[in-house]
Amino acid sequence: MRKAVILVSGGLDSATALAMAQADGFQCYAMSFDYGQRHQAELQAAQRVTAAAGVSEHRIINLDLRQFGGSALTDEAIDVPTSGNEEAEPEGIPVTYVPARNTVFLSLALAWSEVLGARDIFVGVNAVDYSGYPDCRPEYIAAFEAMANLATKSGVEQHHLSLHTPLIDLSKADIITRGTALGVDYALTVSCYQANDESAACGLCDSCRIRRQGFVDAGIADPTPYY
Amino acid sequence: MRKAVILVSGGLDSATALAMAQADGFQCYAMSFDYGQRHQAELQAAQRVTAAAGVSEHRIINLDLRQFGGSALTDEAIDVPTSGNEEAEPEGIPVTYVPARNTVFLSLALAWSEVLGARDIFVGVNAVDYSGYPDCRPEYIAAFEAMANLATKSGVEQHHLSLHTPLIDLSKADIITRGTALGVDYALTVSCYQANDESAACGLCDSCRIRRQGFVDAGIADPTPYY
Repeated sequence: MRKAVILVSGGLDSATALAMAQADGFQCYAMSFDYGQRHQAELQAAQRVTAAAGVSEHRIINLDLRQFGGSALTDEAIDVPTSGNEEAEPEGIPVTYVPARNTVFLSLALAWSEVLGARDIFVGVNAVDYSGYPDCRPEYIAAFEAMANLATKSGVEQHHLSLHTPLIDLSKADIITRGTALGVDYALTVSCYQANDESAACGLCDSCRIRRQGFVDAGIADPTPYY
Repeated sequence: MRKAVILVSGGLDSATALAMAQADGFQCYAMSFDYGQRHQAELQAAQRVTAAAGVSEHRIINLDLRQFGGSALTDEAIDVPTSGNEEAEPEGIPVTYVPARNTVFLSLALAWSEVLGARDIFVGVNAVDYSGYPDCRPEYIAAFEAMANLATKSGVEQHHLSLHTPLIDLSKADIITRGTALGVDYALTVSCYQANDESAACGLCDSCRIRRQGFVDAGIADPTPYY
């Protein structure tokens, strides 16, 4: 079996990407980050998801992005926008964007993949319901892959490294339909930006609203506990 | 003054790149990494170098790359090659290469630059005496810059982000000559892969040999303490 490194956040998308990577025959090494995020419940969700999937290994990397701030997810001084206060949010990139987050996470996935001898990295980014984050766009993913192939031994030794984004063109409803068919238990996952300690979701933040509508559009019962 | 983020390792190259960035008129924000490297003396050197240069801020990021291993610099089980045991080293990329290190470090520099509103990042990589590391090649640097411009708000908002490598085409002797002219005190710096607690150098590892020869070729007295 070919080894793959996969970023698992504890959310719905990465749980689905993990199931798809396994269905494609990859032996999966999961990586999560304790980066000082507001929603620590997602790390517990990542542990539930990777345990249920039976990954080869699950590493949680400590890297406190709060020292940079600049995002509602890592800076207590910036409020998470909800349907109740969305008029306060400016146009463009949302305040929940974490500066260079995917680049930082993918760089560490690249480091681990090189040590493991894995030539495949999976990430559950999605360009349809991508919330306006620059580092979820297909052109960004292509540029990261090109860079990664020059950055590492594998690039020098002509072993092509692939960055897989199996969700990139799927709607949230499509993702939920595909994951459900593969047996993903979405009750294990947490998408909410302000989930409580029991992993219950607010139902109001951007992430909750997109997820909730996805279950409606897919015609699948939403197992998410809301507080 | 324009802000720039600069990676400062404590070594000769990055101290010179910092002096060149300041000479170009940049207000410098220095970033170093405590990544579990063998040569902890270089972090003390980084503090001496940034204090002497009078940077606006110096951040040391904790990110333990030993959890990945795979390098003589981060894995106690792998010996640092020296002139005494070099015949044991295979051709190609040296065992002191740390998997994806520059990519990980530059990603965090990118995150900080975005929060600071800096559009310039400096790194003292060098392609002449580059020790065979894939992530010191000009084509890698160009690919990282292209990726960075798609990864971030600044890319979306059409503020071009530049990755500067002022040393990339210089020999070690050229670097030492330029830095000396700019007033860099190389006695503050540590290049040795196995420096001792007093910042004295072994004089035998690849990094020491390249540095030592650089002073000889530049015709400048070598201030490095050797043990």
